[in-house]
Amino acid sequence: MFAKRMQRVTPSAIMELIKTTAAGDFISFASGLPDPALFPVELLREITDDVLARDGRGALQYGAAEGYAPLRELVAGILRHRSLEATPEHVLITTGSQQAIDLAARALLDPGDRVLIETPSYLAAIQTFDSYEVQYQPLETDAEGIVPERLPEDPGGAKLLYVLPTFQNPTGHTMYRRGREAVAAYVDRHGLAVLEDDAYHDLRYEGIPQPPICALTRSPWTIYTGTFSKVIAPGLRVGYLCAQPELVARLAQLKQITDLHSGSLSQRVVHEYCVRGYLEPGIQLFRSTYTARLTAMLEALQAEMPDRVEWTRPEGGMFVWMMLPRGIDVDALLRQAMERGVVFVPGATFHPDGRGQHTLRLNFVSADEERIRRGIAILGELLRGTIAGS
Amino acid sequence: MFAKRMQRVTPSAIMELIKTTAAGDFISFASGLPDPALFPVELLREITDDVLARDGRGALQYGAAEGYAPLRELVAGILRHRSLEATPEHVLITTGSQQAIDLAARALLDPGDRVLIETPSYLAAIQTFDSYEVQYQPLETDAEGIVPERLPEDPGGAKLLYVLPTFQNPTGHTMYRRGREAVAAYVDRHGLAVLEDDAYHDLRYEGIPQPPICALTRSPWTIYTGTFSKVIAPGLRVGYLCAQPELVARLAQLKQITDLHSGSLSQRVVHEYCVRGYLEPGIQLFRSTYTARLTAMLEALQAEMPDRVEWTRPEGGMFVWMMLPRGIDVDALLRQAMERGVVFVPGATFHPDGRGQHTLRLNFVSADEERIRRGIAILGELLRGTIAGS
Repeated sequence: MFAKRMQRVTPSAIMELIKTTAAGDFISFASGLPDPALFPVELLREITDDVLARDGRGALQYGAAEGYAPLRELVAGILRHRSLEATPEHVLITTGSQQAIDLAARALLDPGDRVLIETPSYLAAIQTFDSYEVQYQPLETDAEGIVPERLPEDPGGAKLLYVLPTFQNPTGHTMYRRGREAVAAYVDRHGLAVLEDDAYHDLRYEGIPQPPICALTRSPWTIYTGTFSKVIAPGLRVGYLCAQPELVARLAQLKQITDLHSGSLSQRVVHEYCVRGYLEPGIQLFRSTYTARLTAMLEALQAEMPDRVEWTRPEGGMFVWMMLPRGIDVDALLRQAMERGVVFVPGATFHPDGRGQHTLRLNFVSADEERIRRGIAILGELLRGTIAGS
Repeated sequence: MFAKRMQRVTPSAIMELIKTTAAGDFISFASGLPDPALFPVELLREITDDVLARDGRGALQYGAAEGYAPLRELVAGILRHRSLEATPEHVLITTGSQQAIDLAARALLDPGDRVLIETPSYLAAIQTFDSYEVQYQPLETDAEGIVPERLPEDPGGAKLLYVLPTFQNPTGHTMYRRGREAVAAYVDRHGLAVLEDDAYHDLRYEGIPQPPICALTRSPWTIYTGTFSKVIAPGLRVGYLCAQPELVARLAQLKQITDLHSGSLSQRVVHEYCVRGYLEPGIQLFRSTYTARLTAMLEALQAEMPDRVEWTRPEGGMFVWMMLPRGIDVDALLRQAMERGVVFVPGATFHPDGRGQHTLRLNFVSADEERIRRGIAILGELLRGTIAGS
């Protein structure tokens, strides 16, 4: 009875892990959850109350599929600061940036179409593409993301490039300007569409912002996605995409049949939060807190990990990626770690092609420094034992 | 570059009409918008403030794809009162009931699959099915909805029946128990899946509730959808579906790749609103207000319409359906009406097969009685002129 596409819709390994460990007092390096202690609860209380008092009827009524007009305008302003061509007509408000990915895939991908994708990449995007029954052309990456020289000479009929060039999930890697320009030139040369996922843009702890690939290509088929989930709060479900107005109009038609529109109240609350000037100080709080946690994790890794274990040193975002010696069974390591109250995500999860057997992802934003140190010490102990015994 | 499915994704005629008329002071019989004066703004202000004060971190954090557990439990209770087998595991919270329709279609429909559908039917559902590249088997209806005796002996390989048996959009018709039982037996006989859209369930102004078709069939492939949009406020974007737990689990996987989950704050606000006992009095206010408007519209139609114009007399919901004499150009009538400040939706819009040329839909809930009378008087005057001249 199920549609054929459902053969490729499977449970999320990460969600299953989160459910399994939700009850216990685990040190979780597994989720992508921000620390809720950083949510601006009191500000949002005040703003929500004001929005309902001033514009309650609008905030509770149906709205346009394209989004709340003042928020589209505000997002356009934010995106112009990121070097993107953006008027309100270039912006579609989405129910989180996951929806932006799904809408882009739904608009562009037929079964059998080929997607150029970093390996590893964001799990829920892979799952979305899977549901559209696509094939993958995995792209080689290193510490600076996609390696331009290793891009396939012939993209093999690929239609879309999906890329997270900034603090990539799961590796934490960032592409620099030269790499981005080379990828943009490749896109232009082969007439590709680009879906650029920039969910972590503002969570930069060092270095300088890099221009979006979408700002460097001449392709009219660019879709750039972002979200307020990482810099205000994810429970509001407000994200956005930026594309040419003709493409936004088509994506808005899809959005309408998907969920009519995103929450009217949520959109107004996010808008008002930004208008009152709370966004930038809020981002600073996330940044300073997460910087301290990243530092604690990198120091703990340095202190606790045996030789032959490597890890990334991200300039921002939420994740550190670890590479273990071959021969280590990461699933067995996870079972041992869970017995000791620590949980992470095995790296194979993020590979559309079954690779990544000896890697794992560590979230450094959910736990505080003390718990990070404790969790890494446990992982170090387990790995020293495993490597000594192997 | 677009996926093939986009050939069948088109602008919504209704949304375009609403945009066109948004600026002027139109008497709108066109939209499906509730009267925002009835939204419980002050109660929702108080509740939202309490929810954020008490559980702000939870209300702003990511949540489960299946929905906020206490809300799933509450919805299950509501649905048991409608004779449905429902535990929390039978319930998936959705971003409005439009998303429930989209998820059901995405899970079940391959390109070329055949959908049994009332003619006319809900536009945004037709648009959703279109995007999955299906074919239609239109079902004959009368004042009691689907005519069981006229169901095709052989459903021609159809997989899914989509049905709005209660205060149908756009006709306003309601199926009674006997008709529902006959349709349920047909579903069982042919092994069909059922998508039952019950968005208007609580907006009943006379008569007694009828059991859902999903409660009468033995099919394990039933998906029943409902929403808080019509009885609290649509801007919160909280709807739900009810299905067997195994099917809910699959639909939740789809929902996760679609938008991760519905708004955490919105779900808690809806839950608390119901827990505090505001739902039933709120429904009573919608009912009494809309009953008066329906009465005003039916009286005005009786007084103003020339012979040979017919209309439905719904027991609930939001719409009256009009049938004009053949030869009347409904699009021309709409143009004339708009010049006089009145707007409605031509009936062909709601037909997947190009029929319905001499019909139109009137929403009776958006305008107050005085404006309803004024609008119907204008339509009556135009129709008297047109019919006299034809």
